[in-house]
Amino acid sequence: MYWRWALRILSVNATLHGRSAQRFYCTTRSGIFRNPATICQKSVLGCRETFSWCSHGLHDIRYHVQEDTTSAFEEPVDPFSLVSDELSAIANRLRSMVIAEVPKLAQAAEYFFKMGVEGKRFRPTVLLLMSKALHIPIPQPTADRVFCSLKKELDARQQRIAEITEMIHVASLLHDDVLDDAETRRGIGSLNMVMGNKLSVLAGDFLLSRACVALAKLKNTEVVSLLATVVEHLVNGETMQMTNSLEQRRSMEYYLQKTFYKTASLIANSCKSIALLAGQSAEVALLAYSYGRNLGMAYQLIDDVLDFTGTSISLGKGSLSDINQNIVTAPILFAMEEFPQLREVVDRGFGNHSDVDIALEYLFKSRGIERTRELAAEHADNAVKAIEALPQTDDEDVMRSRRALVVLTRRVMTRTK
Amino acid sequence: MYWRWALRILSVNATLHGRSAQRFYCTTRSGIFRNPATICQKSVLGCRETFSWCSHGLHDIRYHVQEDTTSAFEEPVDPFSLVSDELSAIANRLRSMVIAEVPKLAQAAEYFFKMGVEGKRFRPTVLLLMSKALHIPIPQPTADRVFCSLKKELDARQQRIAEITEMIHVASLLHDDVLDDAETRRGIGSLNMVMGNKLSVLAGDFLLSRACVALAKLKNTEVVSLLATVVEHLVNGETMQMTNSLEQRRSMEYYLQKTFYKTASLIANSCKSIALLAGQSAEVALLAYSYGRNLGMAYQLIDDVLDFTGTSISLGKGSLSDINQNIVTAPILFAMEEFPQLREVVDRGFGNHSDVDIALEYLFKSRGIERTRELAAEHADNAVKAIEALPQTDDEDVMRSRRALVVLTRRVMTRTK
Repeated sequence: MYWRWALRILSVNATLHGRSAQRFYCTTRSGIFRNPATICQKSVLGCRETFSWCSHGLHDIRYHVQEDTTSAFEEPVDPFSLVSDELSAIANRLRSMVIAEVPKLAQAAEYFFKMGVEGKRFRPTVLLLMSKALHIPIPQPTADRVFCSLKKELDARQQRIAEITEMIHVASLLHDDVLDDAETRRGIGSLNMVMGNKLSVLAGDFLLSRACVALAKLKNTEVVSLLATVVEHLVNGETMQMTNSLEQRRSMEYYLQKTFYKTASLIANSCKSIALLAGQSAEVALLAYSYGRNLGMAYQLIDDVLDFTGTSISLGKGSLSDINQNIVTAPILFAMEEFPQLREVVDRGFGNHSDVDIALEYLFKSRGIERTRELAAEHADNAVKAIEALPQTDDEDVMRSRRALVVLTRRVMTRTK
Repeated sequence: MYWRWALRILSVNATLHGRSAQRFYCTTRSGIFRNPATICQKSVLGCRETFSWCSHGLHDIRYHVQEDTTSAFEEPVDPFSLVSDELSAIANRLRSMVIAEVPKLAQAAEYFFKMGVEGKRFRPTVLLLMSKALHIPIPQPTADRVFCSLKKELDARQQRIAEITEMIHVASLLHDDVLDDAETRRGIGSLNMVMGNKLSVLAGDFLLSRACVALAKLKNTEVVSLLATVVEHLVNGETMQMTNSLEQRRSMEYYLQKTFYKTASLIANSCKSIALLAGQSAEVALLAYSYGRNLGMAYQLIDDVLDFTGTSISLGKGSLSDINQNIVTAPILFAMEEFPQLREVVDRGFGNHSDVDIALEYLFKSRGIERTRELAAEHADNAVKAIEALPQTDDEDVMRSRRALVVLTRRVMTRTK
């Protein structure tokens, strides 16, 4: 069996060697999966979703998450229900972790951790499932293995990653909302509107410092470094979005790099941290990273589509917040490839409504939305591949968690909000 | 000799057990040094500055840094010259450590690390001297001792602390300047004025993340935790200054706690980190912390005096920036103890010039400036005591560095800018 697992790892890793999201995107599209020649698998994980993962030579390599192919013999999994107890525990712990000594700071820091405004809990769900999905024997002893000899202890440490990731995420939201003068967030007034920019900046710094203290307690310096790098990536992404040249605004490579920094890096590196804490091998850690990275990219690409299409099936009913803020995303970039005359409008910066209308007209004449969805699907497929390439196991719980991670890739694709 | 060292440690530690600066201040003033009974030392460190460290029973315990008592047999030390090579190396390394991938972010992040605007280099000087001052045999083996078996390696790791501390410090300056709408910093335009609030917030976050990555590389989770806590303290201090009740504005305890958070914590905890990296005992680490904390408190108290007195000897020529920003500091708080009628003016918030004039009138009639200087002198004395309580050594370099640390306590007291 080992050679099959090794081949699968090789094939997934082949897509990961480029550092930038663009390079990743290019290698996928140009059919890097020529080695191994052909791997066709069905129901590898014994789950209701079945997959065709077949390399067709150098061209047209696609890997589809097939909908509605659930076998009658396998129970359906709902990713969120599977970890609902842990999600509640994390929400409670987060509320206690952000208690600050200074009253105003406490008010500001806990704002987005209060009951009812915790968000979609997407990230903690992914991380909790990834923790369960990696409950597999460790190939060789590591320092962490000694430290985490007890499963319960390991579970607790992996939950800390989910909490820390959420703190970093909320810290970045607080600072982003200040930078964007945002008015709402998670269905309530943004903190900058409610308590002012100053407290938002301070609360963001406070959450980052608490995240760092919590990280230090895990006593794994590689994990500290990974998650500190995520903060840098979030800043990079925000700065790339805020400050760019005309050429960069027109560049798909630039857009994908920014998207990785702003969205995918956090989930990729926290998934990797989960694997490292479990003392898993570099290969398994890379697969966890690949899942997180691809899921994050797919998530953001669909987000960018929904900004145009909205929650309705009919087109043209999105909030258009990106284009109104002069942010160019994948649908427009793809449309521009088909209609080069759109470039002029993009270069003018959507300062007036008529330019927005012209851009939308081109967009809906083009395959921009469709191609963005296709690119998101490629990333979702790659996320599934990463899960499939994990060392095989007969453990029912582990298999169920992996199925749930696969289900999440489909949910990301079909989500309407 | 051991009992003498132990007694000295005991006496210094006695002042450190309270968590808040106020408690610390109170225990010092109420004469906690009744045990050990009487310790009189002269020229303990064989240095030009000589000290009288005598306990006079329960009352009036003072420890003076005597000026101009340099013995003819000992070379004078200049703290900055003693570490000038390392300071240059640190400045160069800092410039390379803050190079960012995104051009605008790079410009913003390097702003205060450019040649000529590195500031007074006070913190790195203290930390480099503390590193040298602790080149003493380690009482018992520790994990770090194994890691740092080579002196060169240890020196490099301790220099990293100086660099990380500087990055955290500059990050806090960037965010503070945004919060205060500051116009200048280090003699040039503040970053928020030159590149805008958004890039200042992002550059601050970037520096924090780079500091955290650099911290992780040291592979000492206690140090990561200590310096992450410093970031939280900086935020606490800023929030305490920004949001306070009338009662808190009038409270010396509140002011001292804020001062610890805003100024002293960074230097206290980074000094402690230097000791921990060297694998020194908890007692030595506490002495290093005590030195940093007391030096930091003295520094800020004198800063608050200079804001009223300015660089000239004559009173009333300071920039008055605190009072004009409605920030109440020690001189006014002491003046209020003598002239309770000043409280009304303080409560009104210095919104108009006449209230500022009235406050200054009371201040200069009172002993406010004098008592603030006395409190700063107490802290400077305690910083010296901490150095004196370090394990004795015959190593000339170590003794010279300790003398330099003592000289710094005097410089802090006599500085005019």
